[in-house]
Amino acid sequence: MSTVYTQDERARLAPETARAVFRSGTVEPTSGWSHGYAQANMISVPEDWAYDVLLFAQRNRKPCPVLDVTDAGASGTVLATGADLRTDLPKYRVWEGGELVDEPTDVLGHWRKDLVTFLIGCSFTFEFALTTAGIPLRHVEQGRNVSMYVTNRQCRPARRLHGPMVVSMRHVPAHLVETATRVSGLMPEVHGAPVHVGAPIKLGIQDLAKPDFGDPVRPLRGDVPVFWACGVTPQAALMASRPPFAITHAPGHMFVTDRPDSEYRLGAQ
Amino acid sequence: MSTVYTQDERARLAPETARAVFRSGTVEPTSGWSHGYAQANMISVPEDWAYDVLLFAQRNRKPCPVLDVTDAGASGTVLATGADLRTDLPKYRVWEGGELVDEPTDVLGHWRKDLVTFLIGCSFTFEFALTTAGIPLRHVEQGRNVSMYVTNRQCRPARRLHGPMVVSMRHVPAHLVETATRVSGLMPEVHGAPVHVGAPIKLGIQDLAKPDFGDPVRPLRGDVPVFWACGVTPQAALMASRPPFAITHAPGHMFVTDRPDSEYRLGAQ
Repeated sequence: MSTVYTQDERARLAPETARAVFRSGTVEPTSGWSHGYAQANMISVPEDWAYDVLLFAQRNRKPCPVLDVTDAGASGTVLATGADLRTDLPKYRVWEGGELVDEPTDVLGHWRKDLVTFLIGCSFTFEFALTTAGIPLRHVEQGRNVSMYVTNRQCRPARRLHGPMVVSMRHVPAHLVETATRVSGLMPEVHGAPVHVGAPIKLGIQDLAKPDFGDPVRPLRGDVPVFWACGVTPQAALMASRPPFAITHAPGHMFVTDRPDSEYRLGAQ
Repeated sequence: MSTVYTQDERARLAPETARAVFRSGTVEPTSGWSHGYAQANMISVPEDWAYDVLLFAQRNRKPCPVLDVTDAGASGTVLATGADLRTDLPKYRVWEGGELVDEPTDVLGHWRKDLVTFLIGCSFTFEFALTTAGIPLRHVEQGRNVSMYVTNRQCRPARRLHGPMVVSMRHVPAHLVETATRVSGLMPEVHGAPVHVGAPIKLGIQDLAKPDFGDPVRPLRGDVPVFWACGVTPQAALMASRPPFAITHAPGHMFVTDRPDSEYRLGAQ
């Protein structure tokens, strides 16, 4: 399945089709794929680290809203019927002692029976709502991954896990910042409202053109940088806290779920 | 501090004063105390059961919204400066192997260094908002604890923990049910909108006059029973799953936090 999809075709793909495309080896950031469906960050750790991760997420809900936690060894999730978490993401990262050791397109060869997988809300989930509200997505327009940065804000530690908050950044036309804040604020389980608008240095970010994860994205005249808490935060915690083993998604290469994004809008529960 | 407070005086007590009153041995349900401040259910388990409890809560967010988790052995919480979780609730329950073995007014003599404490959102938190919206609270009017019932709805299990959902019930005048639903629905971290309105038998409840926890409360003419998910659900899981040891609050005898209830209203984060 090496078909190249246009932007419009990607947006309209059913989630299970998108997952099949990635399972077949297509490697692309998932922003703009399967509009209207929630996407998720993934982190798998040995079971004896699972409580640390879940507690870290509970204590840092803004960057780490938990959508599902699997039983140890399970490769499926309640978020997507028939999905296989070991193959259905476009790209993974494998970590040993906090070091990135591999970046494969599936993790069948790395899987372990003691792995507990956390699926964490992703801001790509509210991008469809942003688009619908008339907000342009510069990274999608430019065919790039969203820009992500490690900030100077420390998360509340949980047992052996500690680390800084990571943010995603979108350039938003100044007159639409209020709309972007309101629309994303209605979806707190996928990071909600921005954590900062305007001055990267306030988050300790020296140069917007040099993201720590993802690609640099060019602003247009009149754009303002808007920063949202990001589900790559647990990866920064892995790097800082060095558990013996972990698997994550590669930043921007998310798990596309079957859950309509409307389920994560305020008042839906 | 054996002062008897009127209903109005209780409502106006600062949270730290309410906690001091309970610390001094006053034993009363906390509904109607310290209006405008969040109240919390409490469950403390040995550290090797902590992941089970946190995962159970994550998988059953409606009855078990987690407001804070302490480090093992800690008796304080970020929810209330200077509070002592071992003394500041009006009444506790001590559990061994799923059996209730004691119901003391403090747990200093039962405390263990390996206990992890979970503070879970409580529907008493939205009662001030209900009152403000003109909804009478029959249990407060009648000077009784709220009625709580074990339902026929099973929670999603988590490792060694399983059990049925518990609900609290309030009699609401029929023409105000919509208002009660809307007002509580705005506060999902303290159980949010009702899980059922009208027919107790739909939840497997045979007789409203015989609650499983709390007191029976008389309806007035035109009242309809409205059921909310309840933070006593983890106690039902203790009874069903029989961990070796646990401490909880006594139903209706909650931890009064320093957090304004407005923090748990939608859009506050």
